[in-house]
Amino acid sequence: MAQVNPAGATPAADPNSIDPRVFPPSARRGSECRELQLGGARATELVEQYGSPLYVIDEAAARDRAREVRVALESEAERIGTSATVYYAGKAFLCVEVAQWMAEEGLAIDVASGGELAVALAAGVDPARIGFHGNNKSEREIARAVEAGVGTIIIDSEVETERIARAAAAADRRQRVRLRVNSGVHASTHDFLATSHEDQKFGQPLSEAPRLVEAILARDSLEFVGLHCHIGSQIFATDGFRESARRLVGVYPELERIAGRPIPELNLGGGFGIAYTSAQAEQAPEVAAIARQLADIVAETCAEAGVSVPQLAFEPGRAVIGQAGVTLYTVGTTKPVLLAGSDAAADPADLGFAERLYVSVDGGMSDNARPALYGADYQVRIANRESDADPALVRVVGKHCESGDIVVQRDVIPGDVRAGDTLAVAVTGAYCWSLSSNYNYVPRPPVIAVSNGSSRVIVRGETEDELLAKSVIPAPVAPANAG
Amino acid sequence: MAQVNPAGATPAADPNSIDPRVFPPSARRGSECRELQLGGARATELVEQYGSPLYVIDEAAARDRAREVRVALESEAERIGTSATVYYAGKAFLCVEVAQWMAEEGLAIDVASGGELAVALAAGVDPARIGFHGNNKSEREIARAVEAGVGTIIIDSEVETERIARAAAAADRRQRVRLRVNSGVHASTHDFLATSHEDQKFGQPLSEAPRLVEAILARDSLEFVGLHCHIGSQIFATDGFRESARRLVGVYPELERIAGRPIPELNLGGGFGIAYTSAQAEQAPEVAAIARQLADIVAETCAEAGVSVPQLAFEPGRAVIGQAGVTLYTVGTTKPVLLAGSDAAADPADLGFAERLYVSVDGGMSDNARPALYGADYQVRIANRESDADPALVRVVGKHCESGDIVVQRDVIPGDVRAGDTLAVAVTGAYCWSLSSNYNYVPRPPVIAVSNGSSRVIVRGETEDELLAKSVIPAPVAPANAG
Repeated sequence: MAQVNPAGATPAADPNSIDPRVFPPSARRGSECRELQLGGARATELVEQYGSPLYVIDEAAARDRAREVRVALESEAERIGTSATVYYAGKAFLCVEVAQWMAEEGLAIDVASGGELAVALAAGVDPARIGFHGNNKSEREIARAVEAGVGTIIIDSEVETERIARAAAAADRRQRVRLRVNSGVHASTHDFLATSHEDQKFGQPLSEAPRLVEAILARDSLEFVGLHCHIGSQIFATDGFRESARRLVGVYPELERIAGRPIPELNLGGGFGIAYTSAQAEQAPEVAAIARQLADIVAETCAEAGVSVPQLAFEPGRAVIGQAGVTLYTVGTTKPVLLAGSDAAADPADLGFAERLYVSVDGGMSDNARPALYGADYQVRIANRESDADPALVRVVGKHCESGDIVVQRDVIPGDVRAGDTLAVAVTGAYCWSLSSNYNYVPRPPVIAVSNGSSRVIVRGETEDELLAKSVIPAPVAPANAG
Repeated sequence: MAQVNPAGATPAADPNSIDPRVFPPSARRGSECRELQLGGARATELVEQYGSPLYVIDEAAARDRAREVRVALESEAERIGTSATVYYAGKAFLCVEVAQWMAEEGLAIDVASGGELAVALAAGVDPARIGFHGNNKSEREIARAVEAGVGTIIIDSEVETERIARAAAAADRRQRVRLRVNSGVHASTHDFLATSHEDQKFGQPLSEAPRLVEAILARDSLEFVGLHCHIGSQIFATDGFRESARRLVGVYPELERIAGRPIPELNLGGGFGIAYTSAQAEQAPEVAAIARQLADIVAETCAEAGVSVPQLAFEPGRAVIGQAGVTLYTVGTTKPVLLAGSDAAADPADLGFAERLYVSVDGGMSDNARPALYGADYQVRIANRESDADPALVRVVGKHCESGDIVVQRDVIPGDVRAGDTLAVAVTGAYCWSLSSNYNYVPRPPVIAVSNGSSRVIVRGETEDELLAKSVIPAPVAPANAG
């Protein structure tokens, strides 16, 4: 299997460049001060209006990409004589507006909790077009999903068959369900992202599928529609999908024999990789190419197995919303560190620079935990101006009381970056807001949407007072006592 | 330097045992059903009253430990002819009540943001006993700290000298400041926790200290009180402190020459390690021993350098609050995975077990990000009962849509653990609530304090409605359009 998520060590040639393979398509430097514009809005004006840090989502980029992904997968499915449902994986980033955009662009929505379900329902998403995931759905969540008329629930463990059947019977519904299996294929990606190896919490061994499907079929209140697998995240090549599809489709004849009818669906999950940096962009696949390869894989594996091609389902999240997001920060301090003589000197990732410039911004691991969680790479640009200063190797760090509080591990930008500059970090649309915390009582920034030069809040930011109000304040305040 | 944070692979001999070196001292199994009690309250009753998951802090454990740490460091300081101020590092876990406990037990408080400062002030903590940290304090945060009368501000970068001097002059105050330096010593700990290596965001090179102190002394509105360093986290041996103290004290003669007076303080930071598991407890040092060694180190290094022993300051956080916390979860599903034949088979950490039992609980990386962030080890026990079932190798996982969503990487507990059981995960008092997120729209649990059989909320939990209310809901709800 091809390597995924390659290190983004090679910097772009021009440290002022706004790479359209990384930033949203609307991102460009305007004529005035060569300032970054997003969706027609000036970065500095956005920060002035909404504060800093600021999550910015380019609405057109999100919608266009959602449609592009959907159309690519649908038309390739059509080419091989079937159809495809494209679920937006809400865990990447969900709010009411984004759920509406996705529904309007023809995507179904995957949710992974009662909370995500509530957001999708509040957005007016047709419940029939919602898929409900999770390795440990509570009985209450299952009941809510069934009662809401959720299209499909993905069964992740044996006990869930019983729980969902009972909830469906109680609601007098016949609930469509899929069974999540582990194909044994795991995309060679960061350990914490791989999700189809069998030594993991999700899904059931493929070898158990016939027995488990038989148990599902035995329940009148359940309608079994197919198998589901998910082989990992940030996958750049389709080899893993090929092997996984082959294995899943390989058991379809037995399932069809057990069911006495064709199994209508095959859900291959998501995990399509995207470029976080210009270096990664060299290797990141085009959506159309991925879709074509996936369709070919399904057609071939079905022919091998002698089953008719089922309806397909896919669950991209990051691939839809990642590149639409940019986070804006304000620089507070800078600090040069000599690399010569330190342990880091030998690191080729330092690109031969003798000095690393630490650039501290007003956010950090609270608004983007991915570098700390996954060692994720990002790309950064000075947003408020261009500069022809000599390029510097920078590490963008946050304001949290932790040395692992890193936003951009390494990039090369003009070396005159300084306090007061606005920085733009690209590809923060997925898994940034959704994994955000209030570490050090730092309020979470708002998420704004930009579109045709206008902007609006789509997720409210927090205030320090809100965070403070979580503390229950007991009546008598004791004086400090130095003992 | 001795290794820190050893892997907690060796399980306790009795899989029902409540190890008092890991759980709070009040934790014990009651006579009724051998159920876990915390601060005299039954675990199942707490879950019934407050819900699950639930953060529980044993108030007496937190207070006793705070006092123990303070008294140990104070009395050892006294032994070598000086005094010590013990700051509670609020970033570990701060709320109004906890800040009050710490103040009442005679500790000063370290804050790392305007938000943490607001909590300490709301708690009625004497501002003079607050230290303000951060590599990138905003000008607004600096002004607030100065105006509040914060005792000391720790200068982390050259530009802060100017910013703090200006804010102090504007407030007509003389602000006490420390200078954070990197000693070049870094405790051999997890990369993300080490904070004194020079290739990191915090502090200034020790070699720059004379020049920077001279600049501080030149500002009338600043009062320089001493150097500060912090060499890492989860440190089990004092070798690193010895080398760091030697280097810092080594420049005190020069600083005294520049200042024309003694430098009154030396702040050696925190980072004292604690045991997260019974295996770690074998190696975790006693507070009294650490305090004695630190005092000896300071006395020796001051004698070597020919300076009088300065007043000392320390900043424990985890060491004060970690063991006071226990998180209670409810089991939703279990899944056995055969290890033989899988990649994991060769892992000695699997202790020879042929099977791993995945135990899914109703929380996860949203309420405890440390396993995902740092590969942290934890210990788990069945809380609602004892069992003489054969022991099983378990991995406690959360309900989030991510395979890295692990709460307890490995432990050995009775193999009949099942849906509905209450689990208790120990040593969650530090860096769990403070790093918590709302991933998958999972509301954060409340934090309750238990004491003498009674319990009360000290940090409010969140509701799904609150999370949903962050979404701005646009007026017209568009119908889903399958395109």
